[in-house]
This record gives sequence, C-alpha cells and structure tokens, in this order.
Amino acid sequence: MSISAPTGQFEGYFKRDVPAEDAHLTHTGPGTPMGEAMRRHWQPVCLSSQLKDLPVKVRILGEDLVALRTKSGQTALLHLHCCHRGASLEFGRITECGIVCCYHGWHYAIDGQLINAPAEPPDSPLLRKVRQGAYPTIERHGLVFAYLGAPDRQPAFPDYDTLNLLGVDLRPYALSHDCNWLQVHENLMDPLHAVFLHSRMGEIQLTEAWGEMPVTDWFEHGDRVCYLTARRIGDKVWLRFNEVGFPNFGQVAGFWEDGSEEKFFERVGATRWTVPIDDTHCWIFGLRHFSDELEAKGLGNPAQVGLEQLDIYGQTRHRSYEEMQRNTGDWEAEVSQRPIAVHALEHRGSSDRGVSLLRRHLARGIEQAPVPPPAVGEQVPTWTCNVVLHRPSENAEQDAASLLKLAHQIKDVVIAADSLPPAQRRREIEKQLEALSAR
Amino acid sequence: MSISAPTGQFEGYFKRDVPAEDAHLTHTGPGTPMGEAMRRHWQPVCLSSQLKDLPVKVRILGEDLVALRTKSGQTALLHLHCCHRGASLEFGRITECGIVCCYHGWHYAIDGQLINAPAEPPDSPLLRKVRQGAYPTIERHGLVFAYLGAPDRQPAFPDYDTLNLLGVDLRPYALSHDCNWLQVHENLMDPLHAVFLHSRMGEIQLTEAWGEMPVTDWFEHGDRVCYLTARRIGDKVWLRFNEVGFPNFGQVAGFWEDGSEEKFFERVGATRWTVPIDDTHCWIFGLRHFSDELEAKGLGNPAQVGLEQLDIYGQTRHRSYEEMQRNTGDWEAEVSQRPIAVHALEHRGSSDRGVSLLRRHLARGIEQAPVPPPAVGEQVPTWTCNVVLHRPSENAEQDAASLLKLAHQIKDVVIAADSLPPAQRRREIEKQLEALSAR
Amino acid sequence: MSISAPTGQFEGYFKRDVPAEDAHLTHTGPGTPMGEAMRRHWQPVCLSSQLKDLPVKVRILGEDLVALRTKSGQTALLHLHCCHRGASLEFGRITECGIVCCYHGWHYAIDGQLINAPAEPPDSPLLRKVRQGAYPTIERHGLVFAYLGAPDRQPAFPDYDTLNLLGVDLRPYALSHDCNWLQVHENLMDPLHAVFLHSRMGEIQLTEAWGEMPVTDWFEHGDRVCYLTARRIGDKVWLRFNEVGFPNFGQVAGFWEDGSEEKFFERVGATRWTVPIDDTHCWIFGLRHFSDELEAKGLGNPAQVGLEQLDIYGQTRHRSYEEMQRNTGDWEAEVSQRPIAVHALEHRGSSDRGVSLLRRHLARGIEQAPVPPPAVGEQVPTWTCNVVLHRPSENAEQDAASLLKLAHQIKDVVIAADSLPPAQRRREIEKQLEALSAR
Repeated sequence: MSISAPTGQFEGYFKRDVPAEDAHLTHTGPGTPMGEAMRRHWQPVCLSSQLKDLPVKVRILGEDLVALRTKSGQTALLHLHCCHRGASLEFGRITECGIVCCYHGWHYAIDGQLINAPAEPPDSPLLRKVRQGAYPTIERHGLVFAYLGAPDRQPAFPDYDTLNLLGVDLRPYALSHDCNWLQVHENLMDPLHAVFLHSRMGEIQLTEAWGEMPVTDWFEHGDRVCYLTARRIGDKVWLRFNEVGFPNFGQVAGFWEDGSEEKFFERVGATRWTVPIDDTHCWIFGLRHFSDELEAKGLGNPAQVGLEQLDIYGQTRHRSYEEMQRNTGDWEAEVSQRPIAVHALEHRGSSDRGVSLLRRHLARGIEQAPVPPPAVGEQVPTWTCNVVLHRPSENAEQDAASLLKLAHQIKDVVIAADSLPPAQRRREIEKQLEALSAR
Repeated sequence: MSISAPTGQFEGYFKRDVPAEDAHLTHTGPGTPMGEAMRRHWQPVCLSSQLKDLPVKVRILGEDLVALRTKSGQTALLHLHCCHRGASLEFGRITECGIVCCYHGWHYAIDGQLINAPAEPPDSPLLRKVRQGAYPTIERHGLVFAYLGAPDRQPAFPDYDTLNLLGVDLRPYALSHDCNWLQVHENLMDPLHAVFLHSRMGEIQLTEAWGEMPVTDWFEHGDRVCYLTARRIGDKVWLRFNEVGFPNFGQVAGFWEDGSEEKFFERVGATRWTVPIDDTHCWIFGLRHFSDELEAKGLGNPAQVGLEQLDIYGQTRHRSYEEMQRNTGDWEAEVSQRPIAVHALEHRGSSDRGVSLLRRHLARGIEQAPVPPPAVGEQVPTWTCNVVLHRPSENAEQDAASLLKLAHQIKDVVIAADSLPPAQRRREIEKQLEALSAR
Repeated sequence: MSISAPTGQFEGYFKRDVPAEDAHLTHTGPGTPMGEAMRRHWQPVCLSSQLKDLPVKVRILGEDLVALRTKSGQTALLHLHCCHRGASLEFGRITECGIVCCYHGWHYAIDGQLINAPAEPPDSPLLRKVRQGAYPTIERHGLVFAYLGAPDRQPAFPDYDTLNLLGVDLRPYALSHDCNWLQVHENLMDPLHAVFLHSRMGEIQLTEAWGEMPVTDWFEHGDRVCYLTARRIGDKVWLRFNEVGFPNFGQVAGFWEDGSEEKFFERVGATRWTVPIDDTHCWIFGLRHFSDELEAKGLGNPAQVGLEQLDIYGQTRHRSYEEMQRNTGDWEAEVSQRPIAVHALEHRGSSDRGVSLLRRHLARGIEQAPVPPPAVGEQVPTWTCNVVLHRPSENAEQDAASLLKLAHQIKDVVIAADSLPPAQRRREIEKQLEALSAR
C-alpha cells in the first residue's frame, strides 16, 4: 500500500518570512511620530472609579505613571518614580493636594511641584528646582483624561456633542488588549467584519440585521474617517454612519438596530479611545450610551459596563479559550493578529478600503494634524448615527446603487448641519432625513 | 579560633565563561541549515486525536501554524495567521473542505487556495492570486505528518518496516520538552546513560539488566547512526541494536528486556521523531509498540500513552520537582542541559562516541543528505532490535572482546538482509541469529 | 459650560527620558568591575538549613551553581551544569565526599575533582584533566559562605567581633529582592528614610523614637562607610552608629531603641550582606542578633527569622499589594526604584550624603580595595552600636550642634579602641562613653 500525500498547490514554504511591522503607525513610545501625535490630544488614562484612597499605577504610551485623586477630590497623573530616589509613588500617601512619597516624605502637588522635602533644610534649593514629572488631567463622565504633550501646545478639551445629550446615561469602561493599538482601532473602520464575525460565523452577537451584506462606502472629512453602510431590510433601509477622529477617537452607532422601525438620527452606542499602554498592549477606554431610544429592546445592561467588562459580547479577555474558539469575539480577532499586526503580509480587498484609508489618514496626520469641525456652543459636532428610512426597493438590479446614493444623501444632510447650535441641528437633520423617507 | 577554608584545587573562577551554542546543528528556524534539512523530510506535527471539531494552534520549526481535520476527514496544516488581515485561524470555522477565517469569512482549502472571500465582489482578483501558506499532510498511526519543505523536493513518505508488523499495536504520543531538539535526540545514541540514570542512580526505571555495564560500539551506515550494546547476563548475551535516521528519526528496541530468554529479532519499543517547536522547545512525537512478545512481562500500559504521557518513567514534565530530584528521568536530564546545550563546555569521553558521531553525521547530512536503504515492498528496512543468545563466557578476561565480536556479527546479519522482502527477511535474520546461539 | 484643565507647571513631557543605569556600580556578572570586587570577598550563598539531603540550585553574581552538604557534613558549591554533558547537578546524588551526576554517574569532589567516570575506562585521561568548576565554602552561624574569586587572591574569612559576643544568639535569614543589589544596600546608609518610611508615613514599624528627626552625619574610614544619628529624647540623647563594609557587608544597631534608658555600647540587631543573584535580583543574607539586652522589650521573635522571613516589618515579598500600599516597607521602597535604579534621574539632597558617599567609596574600592581595620585576637573590630546618654538640652537653639559634637565624640571613642583585645575594648569604650553621660 503506497502512502500518498494530498495533491494541491502548497505554498507554505515560500510564505514563511515575517516582515517587520509598520513602525511609523504602530510604535507610540516617547519620541515616536505616532506617540507624539497622540500626546497632542487629551487621552483617557483610567476610570474615575479606580481612584479611591490609594494611588493607581498605570502605563500609557510606554510611560510608567501614577494616577490618583487628592483628598480634595482633584485627579492627578505623575511620573511613577519619585524624582528624589526613584521609589514608586504607587506606595505614596495621598494628601489634600497631592501625594507624599513613602520613602523620605517628599510631597508633590498635582503639577509635580515639590511642596515639602522634610528631611532637607527648609531653605534647601531642591524646593525651588525639583519638579516631579506630571501631566494635567480632566475628569469627565467617569473617565480621567490627561494631556501628555508639550505644555505650550495644550489643546482645549473637545466636548463632543454626543456627550451632552438629554436622556442619555454615559457609563465608562476600560478593556485591555494584548496587542498593538492600531489593529484594535482599525476594527472601527471595518464594517464588513460585523457581517461575519458577529453574525454569520454562527452566533448572533448583536441582531440578525447585522448579517445582511451592506452597500458600503468610506470617506475622509476633516479630522475624521467614516464609513457608511446601507442595508435593505424589507421595505426599509438601515443606514449606519460611524466615525473615527484623529488620532485614536471613535464612535459607534447604537448596537441593537434591526431596521424594523423608522428613525432619523439615533446617535451613539459607544464613544471610545484606543490608548496604547505600550507597543504590544492597549486599552479601549469608552463610554457606553444608554437611553430609552437606544435600549428600546432591553438588550443592553449598564451593570455590566466598567473595568474589563462590557455588555457587548466578545470585547474582553475574560472568556475561556474554548468559548473564544466557538463564539469568536472582537477581542481575539484583533489580538490574534500578532502582538503587532504585519501590514506587509496582508491581502486587502475592496472591502478593506476603510482600513487603508485610515492608515493613510494617520500617516498624513502625523505630518500635519487634521482640523476637526469647529465647536458650536462649545460642543464639537460628530456624525455617528443610525438612520432607518422607509424606502421600498424599486428595482432589484439597481437597489445597491440606490442604497449607495441614499447613504451619501444622508451623510450630506448630517454634515451640512455642523454649524448649527446642537438642539437646532438635531431638529434640522431629523426634518431633512424624514423628508428622504418615501412614504 | 581560626576559621579555615577547605583546601583543594577550586577552579570555578576560571571556568565561568559560557560560550555560544553550536548554532549550525541546534538552530532550526526558517532558513537555517538544520531547519532546511528537517523540512526536506516528513515531520509529525500533532496527534490525530488532537484534531476534533476545533482547529489546533501548533508551532513547528519556529513557524506558527494551525492544524485541523476538515469535516470530510482530511487533515490540514496552514499558516496560523489569515493572509487577509492576520487574524488567527485557530479561531476559524472548520468546513467540509477547509477552514473559514472568523474575521471576514475568507475560506481556504487545505492547500491554502482562497475558495471564497464573501465580502469581496465575485470577480475579485484576490480569488485568483491569494493563497494561504499551507503544507501537505499525511495521517498515519494516529500521528499527523507534514512536509514543510520546497514543493519540488517533496519525498515519498517513508513507511518503515516496523510500522507494518503483524500483532503490533502502535500507540501515538507527544511529549514536549523545554530545550533544544538536539540534546533530546542525542540521548538515543548515548546507551551508557541508561546504566546510570535509569538504573544505578537508585531506582530501577526499566529492568535490572540495564544496570549491567555493556560492551558498546557505534557506527554510521547510510542515513543511520546506530549503537550496539552487548551485556553478559549469566550464560546469555543481550545484544541491543538501536538506530537514529537523518535528520531526527529514531527507534528504540523493546524496553523490558532482562536477558533471561533467548530471542532473535525482537523489534521496537518506540519509533520516534524529535521535532523542534523553536530553538528552545521541542516535541518527541512517537509510536509506542505493544505486542504479546514485547509486553510478555506486562510492564507497559497502552492507556498511559498519549499527549504528554508515556508509560515509560521519566519522559514527561508532569512530576514534582522533588520527584525529579529523587528519581531523575530522561526529561530533566535532557532539559537541564540549558535551553540550548553548549557543546564547547563538554568533556566527552570514549563512552560519548555516539554523540560525537551523530553530530558529525548531522553536519555532513546538512551539506549532502545521506541515502536511506532502498524500500523493499514499499517498506523501508530498519534494524533496531533486541537479541538474546545463549553464549556462556569462555574466558572471563576476553569476554568483552567476544561480546564485541558477537555484536558485530549480529549487526552484519541484520543489515545484510535489507534487500529481502519483509517476511522473508525476518525469517532469514532469525535463522542466522539462532545459528549464532551456542547450544 | 467650558471644560478647563488645572493650571500649573506640568513638566512630565520634558522629563520622559530614562537614561541608562550606572553599570559600573550595579552590574555584577562575571568579568564586571563590581562583580570582580565582590568575588574578592567571602559571600553568603545560602542558608545552612537549606542543605539537607538534596542539592540546591542557586544563582549568585550571575552564575548558576549548585550548593550541597556532603554526607560527611561538608558544604560545597559547584557549577550547576556537569562539565561532562551539561546535565544539572541539582539532579545529582550526594555522596560522602561530593556529588554524582544523574546522567552518567560522574563523581565530583567538593573542589570539582573528577573522582570517578564509571562509563569510561579506568585509565581514562579524563580523570586527570577534567575538573568541575567549584568554589571553597565556609559554614558559619547557619550561613554558607563561598569565595568566588581567583584562588591566588583568597582572603582570610573575616570573623567580625559582633559574631562572637557572649549571650548573643545569631539567627540566619535570607530575603530575596526583585531588583539590583545596590539600591537595597544603599538603604543602610540612608538613616533619614527611617523617620518617614518606618514612622511618619502612618504605622510605627519599629519604635516611636525613630520618628524623631535626628542630627545626622556620615564618614568614611578604612573599608567602611558609616552614619551617625543623634536624637534628642527628653533629657537623653540616642546616638546610633551604623556601618557598611566594602563591598556589600553591613551592620545595623539594635532595632527597638526608644532612648529611655542609658546604654553605652549596645551592639548589633543584624549583620548582613547584600548579594547579587543577577543584575535585577539580589539576596539579603543576614544574621539577626538576639540577647536579653537587645530584646528587653520582647518585640523580636527568633521563630520568624529564616528563609524569606524576618521579624522586622516590611522586609519580605510575602505581603499583599494592598498591605504594601497601606503600610509600605523597605522591600517595596527598594524594589520599586525600577529593576535597576537610575541614578541620573535622582535629585539627592543633604540628607542623601550617605548614599553619595557610599557610591564614591564603592567606585574607589573597585580601583583599589580599601583596607579593613586589623583583626585583634582573630576578630575584626566593628563599630555599629546604639548609645543612650543622659544629656539634657542646655540651649535649644544650639542643641543640634551639641548633638553633632557629641556624636563625633562617641564615634572617636569607639574607633580609638579598635586595637584593644575584644573584652578589654568593650570595657574601655563603655567606661569612656559613661563619662560622656552628664549626670
């Protein structure tokens, strides 16, 4: 009996080389181009709820830091190692206005000023010249943001419109990932994965409607890269409009859409930032949005939103390996692309245009920061939304073209209203989108 | 009271340098000489029993791979990371004929052909030009073998005679080791360790007869390096003939021999391959042979043969550190030689000629592959055997010389029969060896 | 509502660089200047109590070694990997006079001599020329010391006076630290940390008196660097005199002093050596001293002294992270200075003069070893002590100057008696110190 090998064109031997990662976009340590770009924007660094009576060691953009809340309630972020002798401030004592190092009692204000060095003489020159590395922080909606860039370039804190909506309850969360930030962030501009990973692979992780293949397009506008997906759901069309903002901001429209009911400008399911810990680890810091409108089906659960947990399936590390194999989630689809995904090995197709566009946008943004839309009423307008219109198919063969045209009409309506005050803007958009519904 | 140090010639200070390992023989990653030599031979990569309904991540020769069994029953081995966007195929869905990536549904045949990319248009050029790295596999006796070399050099699968014996039950196993492959493999050409490690150190790990110091010789023949050990057991002589084949094949004669009963050509206790995972980890993949003859004493246990287990003492990592210290096995004797043993620090003696010979054989084989004996009836002849002859000692002083001469006579008988058909060959060898028994 | 960031001079961005460590003082592997300096002195390598019937793997100064006690009771220290084929001697069998390698039975004497290679012929040249790397050992007070330097420079074992006191019970201990040796050792010349870490941070880890800010001075004398602290305790003055000896020896005066009772030459709470495991791990090996005088308050506990335990708070890794944060000990204050503390980032003040002095002393000692005081009666004199004198404050404004002057008088008395025989020396010092008490 002869033992025969399978026939076929086996090319593993020729494809063994693993080239280097794209360091320009993926490396974010101090002094790297992408890291510096991130340092020019406010970044979440921990949850408010983590800051109780003890300091918290964090690592952000390759830097070891300590986050804390003073006894007077102010948040702070300082370099981890005391600039006296290097002992970690995670072992320090929190005071009314700062933190005291455990080792020799050096007392730092939240901006790093050395307030007291009790083993030194009162006239010590150290008190004038020593300053612990520190970064300014702002606490909003249960997230602690910090500005880790050059002081003379500190930007205003961008207060997005979606964080100011009546009737919306924001719940902060933080999900750690064992891989580079970019492959996590890119997932936001890859709407086709939802058809497969979240639907057709077996389990319905969101709603059945996600499994419909959409007409899709991507575009760049100002500091944003966006996708539009339009799905035919019977006589209705579900249009989903999602955005990411330079460098690592993103928004995702409501999760539970099924296209069954008309809606004209339903906003955001989650606002998030993909923040590098170091080059092979990152956080998703986010705000889950809960409202009667978003949660009409009762599928979300605010009690499951927080540190290393989210009420959306597959976003965390805390599932068994077998569950990850049988019902694969975003977490393992992203993390398993290697510690740093290797772009040179990819074969991207027309459905990956968003990923390619995002990478070009980031590369250009490193050279010259793109400009966001101007704030109106101190709120920065964003576009992410679900829209469901009544639009029966007129011509099956041309339905895809019609959906694409409609998607662009909707996009134009939404963006055109950027300069209106928030309340007026919403009314204007809803009015125009309602007019696009063919009843 | 003066405190005195022990006298003696303490030379630790002069022997502190740890030179580099012999990279030529020990490094096996893609492109290395030894790795390429291994890729020109079929290699076990996992157990059949590991391939159930989920894909299995494996690492072989420094390469990350996924092994699987299609729903139609065919085994397959592909590069781990999907060539679309890099998600790991360990999270893919097994199909009738291949595997679907979890992320965007790309469907690969077992040879890596892209069968479907459902988010791409049907006429996408990707479908013609994309191919996932893959390797052909053959499943035999509960082991999955793969050929990881250049397609135009793919050899026939070597069907060793010992894998085709009537009455022999083959049980597959896989034992991982935290060290380089070579120091595990060399143990096969080091028969003297058995006298000490397996016997005289305290516990009898096999039989008492192993503790007898044998007359030993080594030789090279074709693609093999072999040892001959001859032990005086009363009026009998136990001759053990073991072989390794280029580059990482090996066979071990039956384990439980005590030299008490005549036997003329008892074959193999285990057939095995030492397969690098990477340069500091390796597998022993093997087939334990069970037969009435081999297991006459009832010492073996097929139920203890499998993934990370073997019915021979000391072959696995799963014992306590104290047990490893008190009853040391092959596993820790091999692994503790450093992650990669340093040949430049060794002091080899006459009893280590087998190790030296094997290393020279490997180095020459890297340059020009040695030729195995031709297959007869599609079976490749192998030589490993236990022989016990009735041969009382005639002259105590010259007994060692007599044993050595006898060992070579037996070796010559075994090898001379290589070209006979298997059944005839066995009869011929047994007839001639029986004639060497002095009764 | 505008969102405003805190104002302040935040300089984290300008202080991100982490320079290299001071390799000259912190690196101690084979061939490094500091490592060679340490190898010229006897170093503890394990506890006597660790050496039972099994060999013990240890790592010292970046070298892998095996420590053992022969069946005849002699301690030994050999290179870990058998010089035959590299198997670890931690799996060897201990004999009357040495150790047998598990793999092939090579038998080494404690100086590494190859006594037997049983698989080799009796006249093998290996028996004359092979020698396992080994180091001489001396066992004292429950510690096993080894000399790891060049044989022709082997010094006498220094028998410190404090290890020969009547009524003092010495208890050995070993505490591992996950950081470089120097930042652990420096703590001994940093008396001010005790005011804060051990007292004012919250919990009283020793006695309340430690929280009093002392007048402090440091000086170098022979092979020692010392500190003097003088504390005003009501009408009394508590003078503490501690020393470190080149390169990594140190002594600490009794721990439980409260300054309430006159005493003139109370000696040592602990004698210790900070021994590198490798550049990012080290041991404190030490001897805790127990006597009726030292333990008058009953605060110490000999039953809590040993491997990874000490009866002084905060010296071990075995506390919860929360306990380390709430009641921080020496262990985490030292270890958290990074795996190797970065001197270039420090801002040392006048209270850190001891640390600076110690580093200069070490750097000079690497070039030319400093000379210890000559032994008298085979005992090397040491100076560490607590002294409590009756000395009411005469002038509050000048009390600090008086304390400093008194500290130097006491130091001069102690050192001047170095050349007297031990018993006479003690009487002389006590007599002169009693005369300094103003009653």
